[in-house]
Amino acid sequence: MIAAMEHFDALPTPCLLLDRAVLESNCRLMAERMTKLGVRLRPHMKTAKSAEVARLATAGHFGGITVSTLKEAHYFAERGFKDILYAVGFVPSKIGEAAAIQEMGDQLILLTDSMAAAAETAIRAAKLGRKFPMMIEIDTGDGRCGLDPDSEAGAIVELGRLIDRSAALELRGVLTHAGQSYHGASVEAIKAIAEGERAGVVKAAALLRAEGLSCPVVSAGSTPTARYAEGLDGVTEMRPGVYMFGDVDQALIGSCSWDHIAVTVLASVIGHNKRTRRIVIDAGGLALSKDIGPAEFDADTGYGTVVGEGGKPRADRLYVAAVSQEHGQLGLPGGKEPPWDEFPVGERVRIFPNHVCMTAAAHNSYRVIGAAGEVTDEWDRVNGW
Amino acid sequence: MIAAMEHFDALPTPCLLLDRAVLESNCRLMAERMTKLGVRLRPHMKTAKSAEVARLATAGHFGGITVSTLKEAHYFAERGFKDILYAVGFVPSKIGEAAAIQEMGDQLILLTDSMAAAAETAIRAAKLGRKFPMMIEIDTGDGRCGLDPDSEAGAIVELGRLIDRSAALELRGVLTHAGQSYHGASVEAIKAIAEGERAGVVKAAALLRAEGLSCPVVSAGSTPTARYAEGLDGVTEMRPGVYMFGDVDQALIGSCSWDHIAVTVLASVIGHNKRTRRIVIDAGGLALSKDIGPAEFDADTGYGTVVGEGGKPRADRLYVAAVSQEHGQLGLPGGKEPPWDEFPVGERVRIFPNHVCMTAAAHNSYRVIGAAGEVTDEWDRVNGW
Repeated sequence: MIAAMEHFDALPTPCLLLDRAVLESNCRLMAERMTKLGVRLRPHMKTAKSAEVARLATAGHFGGITVSTLKEAHYFAERGFKDILYAVGFVPSKIGEAAAIQEMGDQLILLTDSMAAAAETAIRAAKLGRKFPMMIEIDTGDGRCGLDPDSEAGAIVELGRLIDRSAALELRGVLTHAGQSYHGASVEAIKAIAEGERAGVVKAAALLRAEGLSCPVVSAGSTPTARYAEGLDGVTEMRPGVYMFGDVDQALIGSCSWDHIAVTVLASVIGHNKRTRRIVIDAGGLALSKDIGPAEFDADTGYGTVVGEGGKPRADRLYVAAVSQEHGQLGLPGGKEPPWDEFPVGERVRIFPNHVCMTAAAHNSYRVIGAAGEVTDEWDRVNGW
Repeated sequence: MIAAMEHFDALPTPCLLLDRAVLESNCRLMAERMTKLGVRLRPHMKTAKSAEVARLATAGHFGGITVSTLKEAHYFAERGFKDILYAVGFVPSKIGEAAAIQEMGDQLILLTDSMAAAAETAIRAAKLGRKFPMMIEIDTGDGRCGLDPDSEAGAIVELGRLIDRSAALELRGVLTHAGQSYHGASVEAIKAIAEGERAGVVKAAALLRAEGLSCPVVSAGSTPTARYAEGLDGVTEMRPGVYMFGDVDQALIGSCSWDHIAVTVLASVIGHNKRTRRIVIDAGGLALSKDIGPAEFDADTGYGTVVGEGGKPRADRLYVAAVSQEHGQLGLPGGKEPPWDEFPVGERVRIFPNHVCMTAAAHNSYRVIGAAGEVTDEWDRVNGW
C-alpha cells in the first residue's frame, strides 16, 4: 500500500516548488536538440545547484557539467560527477580548493582570460604537484569577460602559448557565453546572437590552431542561444542552464513557454490592503529576489507573476507589484481593484520567478511535485560559497 | 600563548565580513538612545539573523527581540531568547509552528491587521490548548500593511474587541513600522516621518483604550526613525534592525555614517576588461544582492560601493556598476578608466552593501574581524524559512 502523499497546498510558506514532469520535459528537449545539432551538452548547474536535477540534465549525454562556484564543484564531485567545468575566471588563490576537488573527481577544468592569472595558477599548481585543464574565455558580444577574437586575436594566441607551455596546465580549448541573448527582443534577434556566439568562438579556436596549438573543446551557450541556434558548426559543446526551470524572463523573450516553467514560489495571503489595492503575501524580496530584469520587456512584471489556470499567467495579470524583505504585494496592472474574494487570508498563491537563478538561491531545497500536485520528494541545493 | 590569527585577506571569496568594534558601537549607541528616550529596545533581528549579534543588540535592555520569520523565532528560542515578537501578519496555518516555538520560550507574540486571520488563529490556538499574545498592525504612512488610525478607526476597535474576547488570544497592543523612512531625502524629512509614526500608533492605542480595551504595548520603529525621533511620548518600545550593520542606503539618507557600516563583502579581482573599462570581481548578484535602492539618491551606486581608506568610499567612487550571478563589474562614474594597477588579478576588494538585509541573506555566516583585520570568529546566520 502506498502512503497518501501530501498536496503542496499543505506545505509551510514560502517555499520553492519544482514540477517534476515539466523539469523532465525541459531536460529531454534540450538534450535531444543538442544531439541533433551534433554537440555535447554540458549543462550549467548554477541555476539548479542540485545533484538530482543534474542527473536528469545530463541524461543522454556524456555526463559533464558546468558550475559557477567551487562549492558547487565540490558538491557535485562528492556526488559522482567526474567532469566539471568551473566557468568563472579563476583566481590563483583558489588553487587549494581546486586541488581538493580534483582529488575527488576525474577532472576540474579552469577558465581564464588573463595572462597574470594563468601564469600564477601555473606556478601554484606546480607547487602542489597538480595539473589542470584550462580554457580561454572569449567575448562574443556580452562585454563581461573574455578576449575579443577580432580586436584581441594576439592576446588569445599569447595566452594559449602560455598555457600550452606550462607543465602544470593543459590547454583545453575556448569558451564563450553570449549573455546578451537574455536581452534579445525577438527570436530573430536571438538567432543572430547565436550565430555571432558560434562564429566568434570558432574564430578564436582557429586562431590557436593556426599557431599549432591544440584546441579540442569549443564551448558556447546560453539558454536562448541553445534554444534558437540554427547551426553549431565548429562548436563541440553547449552550456545552457536556466532552460531546466524557465522563468518570466525566458518566457518573455520566447525562450520557453509559460507552461514550461518548472519552478514556482508558493506563498500564503497574509492580508488585504484595501486602501492601496494590494493583496499581501508572505513571499518578499528574499523569497522571490529583487531581480527586475523582465521590466525590460513588460512594465507590469514587478517581482514575479501569479500563476493562473493551465500554468499560465492569469487573464487579469495579477503580479507582485512591490516587495520588502518578507512581504510581497500583489496588484493588478493600472492599480485596478484586485479579486479580493479569490484570495482570502490563508489562501495559497504560486508565483512565477522573474529570474529563477536568483530566486532559487534563497531556498535550501525544492519540494518536488507530481502531476496531481502531490509532494513526492525534497531535493537539496548547494548555496553559498 | 595565543595563536596568530589569520587576516581576512586570506579568506576564500566571496564572503561576508563583520567588523566587531563597529557592530558593538552601533548597538551601544542605539541602546543608549532608546534608554534616553524612555522606551524599551526590541531590536529587529531580520537583518543579522544571528544569536551572537542579538546578544550585543539586546544588552542594556529587557532582552526581547523582533523576528521576520518563524524559522528565526525557532532559532532564537533555542538559543535562550524568551520574548519574541513575530512582526509579519500571521497566517493561521502557521499555528503548529508557532505553538512549537512557544513551548521553547516564554512567549511568542503574533501580529495581525485582519479580522479573518485573528478569528481563525483564535480557533486553531484553542484547539491546540494554546494562548498567544497578539498585536494589531497600524499603518502610519508606509502603505504596506496595517490599519489606518484615521480612516479605519472603527476597524481597529473591532479587531481589538475580537482579540480581547478570544480566550486563546490576549490583546497585547499596537505596532507600526514607518518603512517610508527609508526613502527620507533629508534628516528633516525623517524627523517628520518619525513624529507621524509616533503620533499614529499612539492614536491607535488611544482608540482601543477609549473602548476600555487593554493596550500595554505601543511599538514603533525603523532604523531611520529610531535614529532621528525627537520624542517618543506614548511609545513603549522601538524595533530598529539595520542600524546594527548599516549599509549604503542608510549612509545616503544620513541614518549612519560610512565608517559605521559594520558589514562588507570581501571579493577577489578575477579579470580586467579593458574594452569596457571594468574590473571584474567574484562577487555578483548572489553575493551582493540585486537591490538597487540607493539609486533613488545617487545614480552611481549600482550594486555596491568599494570601500576605501578609513572605511569610507574611495575618492574616485569606484562602485559595482553591473552584476551577473557570480560576476561583479567595478567601474568609475562616467565610465572613466579605472585604476587598473591598484587592482591586479587576485587583489582583494571590500564592498559596502546597498541593502545589508538582502546581501547578508545570501551568506551562511559572518567572518568576524578585529581592529587589525584579524579574523576572530565565525558566527552563524539563520536563513530561509
